[in-house]
Amino acid sequence: MTPSALQTYLHTYIPLTVVMQVTVLKAENNELILQAPLQPNINPHQTVFGGSIATLATLAAWSLVHSRLVCEGLESTVVVRRGQIEYELPTAGDFIARATVDEATWDSFKVHFLAKNKAKIPLNSVIEYNNQVTTRYTGEFFALRHTK
Amino acid sequence: MTPSALQTYLHTYIPLTVVMQVTVLKAENNELILQAPLQPNINPHQTVFGGSIATLATLAAWSLVHSRLVCEGLESTVVVRRGQIEYELPTAGDFIARATVDEATWDSFKVHFLAKNKAKIPLNSVIEYNNQVTTRYTGEFFALRHTK
Repeated sequence: MTPSALQTYLHTYIPLTVVMQVTVLKAENNELILQAPLQPNINPHQTVFGGSIATLATLAAWSLVHSRLVCEGLESTVVVRRGQIEYELPTAGDFIARATVDEATWDSFKVHFLAKNKAKIPLNSVIEYNNQVTTRYTGEFFALRHTK
Repeated sequence: MTPSALQTYLHTYIPLTVVMQVTVLKAENNELILQAPLQPNINPHQTVFGGSIATLATLAAWSLVHSRLVCEGLESTVVVRRGQIEYELPTAGDFIARATVDEATWDSFKVHFLAKNKAKIPLNSVIEYNNQVTTRYTGEFFALRHTK
């Protein structure tokens, strides 16, 4: 999917992404980057709300699995199963979530997925503000193939 | 804090809680309950978006620490440090987040907090839909006392 097609999908089907003002900066096979501004995501301390951080980190990882499966012609329902997040530094302004996957992880996921029409995949993302990582996220996602 | 005072605080200082339509159902010393409707928090599968679930679970636990410290006259900055979440079942409609703390955990936190004007506290919350737990969250929060 192109960044613009993914952004349209997110804004259409996940209304919270509209009010968070999420934009898609990059949507490639091994890396997906989402961005959001501080103001709609602010907290009482004038930094980014922990809920917005968890949301963008989860959404970047979810979007990577979703959009790559679409690109590979494997339309699926993808859901998050579990997540772990470490807030290391305050996120004090506009921020991005960068999700990445290495080929070995994707290949292992795809072998199981093609065999069973469903599979789990672990994925990492980080939140960056001002070119510094402020938060680290690890999630596990489950994909179920749409069979006809 | 009363539920209504807490709700006003959240809606004033965390704009995302307004668009998520978060309401405070209960704000007591050992239990705090937040509620949100499905529609503004929906995902492509017509269930609650994982980001909204993580947000409400985190916010309920944060609110419990924040509001109890206010009640005890210990005004502080409270921030989330880390979290773990397990999505066990789909959350298919209006949902609540229930955060709880036992007295032993609070007392241990308060001993450290009063000695150092700062302390960490672990807290759990669950997401419930239709009287069933769908998601379990454990977080660690850090409180820094406002000293004059």
